[in-house]
Amino acid sequence: MTAGSGCREAPARPELGWHTLESRILCETPHLQVFCERVATPSRPGGVEWVVARRRAAAVVAPRTAAGKYLLVRQERVAVRRALWEFPAGQVDGEVNPEAIRATALRELGEEAGVACRGELVSLGAFYSSAGFTDEQAHLFLATDVAPRAEGSAHDEHEVILGVGEFSAGDLRRMIAAGEVADANTLALFARLTARGLLE
Amino acid sequence: MTAGSGCREAPARPELGWHTLESRILCETPHLQVFCERVATPSRPGGVEWVVARRRAAAVVAPRTAAGKYLLVRQERVAVRRALWEFPAGQVDGEVNPEAIRATALRELGEEAGVACRGELVSLGAFYSSAGFTDEQAHLFLATDVAPRAEGSAHDEHEVILGVGEFSAGDLRRMIAAGEVADANTLALFARLTARGLLE
Repeated sequence: MTAGSGCREAPARPELGWHTLESRILCETPHLQVFCERVATPSRPGGVEWVVARRRAAAVVAPRTAAGKYLLVRQERVAVRRALWEFPAGQVDGEVNPEAIRATALRELGEEAGVACRGELVSLGAFYSSAGFTDEQAHLFLATDVAPRAEGSAHDEHEVILGVGEFSAGDLRRMIAAGEVADANTLALFARLTARGLLE
Repeated sequence: MTAGSGCREAPARPELGWHTLESRILCETPHLQVFCERVATPSRPGGVEWVVARRRAAAVVAPRTAAGKYLLVRQERVAVRRALWEFPAGQVDGEVNPEAIRATALRELGEEAGVACRGELVSLGAFYSSAGFTDEQAHLFLATDVAPRAEGSAHDEHEVILGVGEFSAGDLRRMIAAGEVADANTLALFARLTARGLLE
């Protein structure tokens, strides 16, 4: 396979000195492709070999009601054999661009939490879920003044949302402190909300 | 392959109603194994098919000096083609148990940041880096009163640490707000520190 072929997306912010020298696919599934790559880096221009799991970018959204409550969904997570309380999230379909990412956030608000955004959809940047082995990047949003939408929720048949709960900022903080919130998406979004002084 | 075989670790907190019905390996590399599994869940006792990327558990540690500064390492991350400012982290070698996890945190403090912990190593629970597709779990710690160790740092030859920086809690907050800190490990650990009132 020629250099860089088979990669679904370019890195979101390519930096100088990074070049894919070789890439061969080890495993391909609908939601995950694994490559063995040889990559030149700024400090290692001769290249280093790395196994990279490629995934589509995702959007994660913190739905906040007019009363200042946050909505979390409780979702069965097969990979970790647990149900987790999380902010709604989903993968971007098709081309990854700012409009598609925002549309994904709004779609997941509706499908997973059954609400629509009547206020603003505030971008809070992105993060890498596990930069040691995957290019997966999730884009973070705060949706203000969310309210139930007429059609309710509409879960993907492959996923199971067990419930939707409304939590104050203090509840959320306590759940994070106690380890009851334990997924990177929700923790990263809480970190950005807190760091920007937007939590309450 | 028989049910559940090939799995490196049991889920950290198995819950009632989860059973691996079938598991076949799609891809095996030293640091990543991908399985196609059929799993019974509490809401889907007949089973659901899922592709799961299995990884060893990791430890992430926030090194804090006696003066209240945090140490971050700047690391080249091949999977995302960028250098990132992060808290030191690494995978647990051998059997995953509480002692091995703490030893990993202390090892990474020394190897990546060149410091030793003269105070306490405080456990802040764990998190899942991307519960939609991987069982990877990272255990979070605060190390207090860290100070340079005699032997300095000793980086893994496969990794490149470009530098170590000292940042106040306010610096850290500003870097997170600005998106300059963008890895799940550091954001999740900041979230737990903040939620527990331990940041400053």
